[in-house]
Amino acid sequence: MQIAEPLQRAIDELNKLPTIGRKTALRLALYILKSKEENVTTLTNALLALKTDLRFCNTCHNISIDEECEICKSTRRDKSVLCVVEEPSDVIAIEKSNEFNGVYHVLGGVLSPLSGKGTDDLNIDSLVKRVEHSDIRELILALNPDTEGETTALYLARLFKNSNLNISRIARGLPVGGDLEFADQATIGRAFIGRIKVE
Amino acid sequence: MQIAEPLQRAIDELNKLPTIGRKTALRLALYILKSKEENVTTLTNALLALKTDLRFCNTCHNISIDEECEICKSTRRDKSVLCVVEEPSDVIAIEKSNEFNGVYHVLGGVLSPLSGKGTDDLNIDSLVKRVEHSDIRELILALNPDTEGETTALYLARLFKNSNLNISRIARGLPVGGDLEFADQATIGRAFIGRIKVE
Repeated sequence: MQIAEPLQRAIDELNKLPTIGRKTALRLALYILKSKEENVTTLTNALLALKTDLRFCNTCHNISIDEECEICKSTRRDKSVLCVVEEPSDVIAIEKSNEFNGVYHVLGGVLSPLSGKGTDDLNIDSLVKRVEHSDIRELILALNPDTEGETTALYLARLFKNSNLNISRIARGLPVGGDLEFADQATIGRAFIGRIKVE
Repeated sequence: MQIAEPLQRAIDELNKLPTIGRKTALRLALYILKSKEENVTTLTNALLALKTDLRFCNTCHNISIDEECEICKSTRRDKSVLCVVEEPSDVIAIEKSNEFNGVYHVLGGVLSPLSGKGTDDLNIDSLVKRVEHSDIRELILALNPDTEGETTALYLARLFKNSNLNISRIARGLPVGGDLEFADQATIGRAFIGRIKVE
């Protein structure tokens, strides 16, 4: 038996999404097929609104409704501290921690020669302009602790070496609630190098 | 920071789908936000088409484009053997095995007093009429080997006890490629009860 064409098409489209394999795509398609029509249109309208109602902030490239995002517009944020992240999802994660009150700059990825991503593909030009034209004192590099994140952090640190910026990177070490016994060597190594003196 | 309303709405809607947790919903929403607009409309159109272009077969309740599904319409299928399954996804799974050339009857679920699903909520009436009005010789109950599937199979077996139908259930035992060491007791028990004589 051939799977009915509209079902096959929906499976193929869902399968293109990250984390959705063919079995999950089939399950989702059958679930949607059984849902009420109004629920399906609510879902599809919400997905379409992502493209029509949202844009990227002109200043920091984070997700935004207006030309400038809520964080850049806010008067309560410390504009002298700039946190550089890879993706908008990192902004959401950091905001959830409630530990940072500065502003962000979303690179839109990391340097990755293998996937052909160079400096021109990231929002680095606008970062340089921002640093030049505003009162930024401190640059916090909050990139993922993998090879590409490390490379990008190194590149940015060198790029701003001659500026008066205070450049730092977020700490690597054991995750809170983590178990030393099960931590990998690199993490334990980093935790030792980054040890903090007990006062 | 509040997550922008359109993004939050998309996350909420995606989160309603089975197997999609909040983190996956966020990841999918951000992926869609970054996709080309034409790719998003292709996806949403494919999802909407599930409701507009598909229906359930009048005879067997399987997914269908027309009033009767491809399997019921086919002249190459053995209409005297009827396989009873829970959901359309089971039809797809059985068809993939290429082991069955009869026709199907999709119950649309199983008897489940706890979730308030009784005989009236399943396609049992139409099954009884089908058995009465067509030349069905054999009924194969291919329900899931869980409590509710067993209960439903027992109910159907009793319902057709006085008919001349040859009623069978698909075999339970060790899955092909499975490991006896790791099989659960119930499966091993069933495999022993259902042992087949070596000729």
